[in-house]
Amino acid sequence: MKTPLQFYFDFSSPYGYFAAVRIDELAAEFGRLVDWHPVLLGVIFKTTETRPLLQLPLKGPYSKHDLTRTARHHQIAFKLPTIFPIASHQTARAMLWIQNKHGKDIAKQFAKKCYQSYFVDDINISEVEAILKIAADCGVNSEEVANGIQLPEIKVQLKTEVDVALEQGVFGSPFVVVDGEAFWGFDRFYQIEALLKNGQI
Amino acid sequence: MKTPLQFYFDFSSPYGYFAAVRIDELAAEFGRLVDWHPVLLGVIFKTTETRPLLQLPLKGPYSKHDLTRTARHHQIAFKLPTIFPIASHQTARAMLWIQNKHGKDIAKQFAKKCYQSYFVDDINISEVEAILKIAADCGVNSEEVANGIQLPEIKVQLKTEVDVALEQGVFGSPFVVVDGEAFWGFDRFYQIEALLKNGQI
Repeated sequence: MKTPLQFYFDFSSPYGYFAAVRIDELAAEFGRLVDWHPVLLGVIFKTTETRPLLQLPLKGPYSKHDLTRTARHHQIAFKLPTIFPIASHQTARAMLWIQNKHGKDIAKQFAKKCYQSYFVDDINISEVEAILKIAADCGVNSEEVANGIQLPEIKVQLKTEVDVALEQGVFGSPFVVVDGEAFWGFDRFYQIEALLKNGQI
Repeated sequence: MKTPLQFYFDFSSPYGYFAAVRIDELAAEFGRLVDWHPVLLGVIFKTTETRPLLQLPLKGPYSKHDLTRTARHHQIAFKLPTIFPIASHQTARAMLWIQNKHGKDIAKQFAKKCYQSYFVDDINISEVEAILKIAADCGVNSEEVANGIQLPEIKVQLKTEVDVALEQGVFGSPFVVVDGEAFWGFDRFYQIEALLKNGQI
């Protein structure tokens, strides 16, 4: 069995969303699965001494345009959310709790619906109310999720997962590791595809 | 006559080098010319509050690997220079002086040879001696270049060109403007190609 692709993303990252729309399909084409890992760019950026893209002079306005253009070119539905960026720790905790309790598939379904809600329907997925509604749409008891994301062990689990990601060199979103080879950015998907196809790059 | 592509690059930028290897060929395929504009990322990064890529934690080591991998994937000869990055103002001034005196074609030839010398042959093109040798290889009198790059008006010209580039939103290398549409990065060349092909993107 070939190893799954390791996919790291932040729920507030638009390029992470583009990757999320495409990665399962890309992996499946070459008989691979994908492990989804929510991370927190806010924490990672402290280590890498980076600031959120859209806050950067010149690069910010450019990136807004690039996002819309790139989404259109790849035929991905996209609208830059009214409130952007957002704190994504509650959403990430909810995903981990759902994964612990209901397994990877439901957790992934939840993650996809979160991204869709944020980057297509302009719903602020940092708010617990929105998170619970999306969980309920996935058939998960929302009261249990509300309790779950408050648990100390979930907070510790997310912190640990972000620390482990950092140790593995993850510094952005999307970040994909395929058989030990690391790729940063949706614009490296053509190289991921080449690696999956040829077994080397 | 269709307008030329506006290509901004820093002589110390490896992704700028990749772009330089490909851009004339890409433009020619769609009946376009390319205007080459040397800029100084050192100056631009002060405005954009950015630091050189390879100096960034985590992103630095990743980028070294990405450069080699990307060069290999696109079949571009590449070796990360022993001394990297370098101050590129003397090289940029030499290019401008050659352009003023001998025209765009010779200046472009000089720029290509500089990039090749730095990113293939590991020659430190920040050194005047190397610059003069490359100029001589292009049939330009090296003594005249040595004097030319010291002229106050060339220093002013480069400073002005960098300021104008900044005003137009240029914040990185490579940076390409096609019919008013801006693209940052060698990894946006597929979008430039789409625009040239379809007249829109």
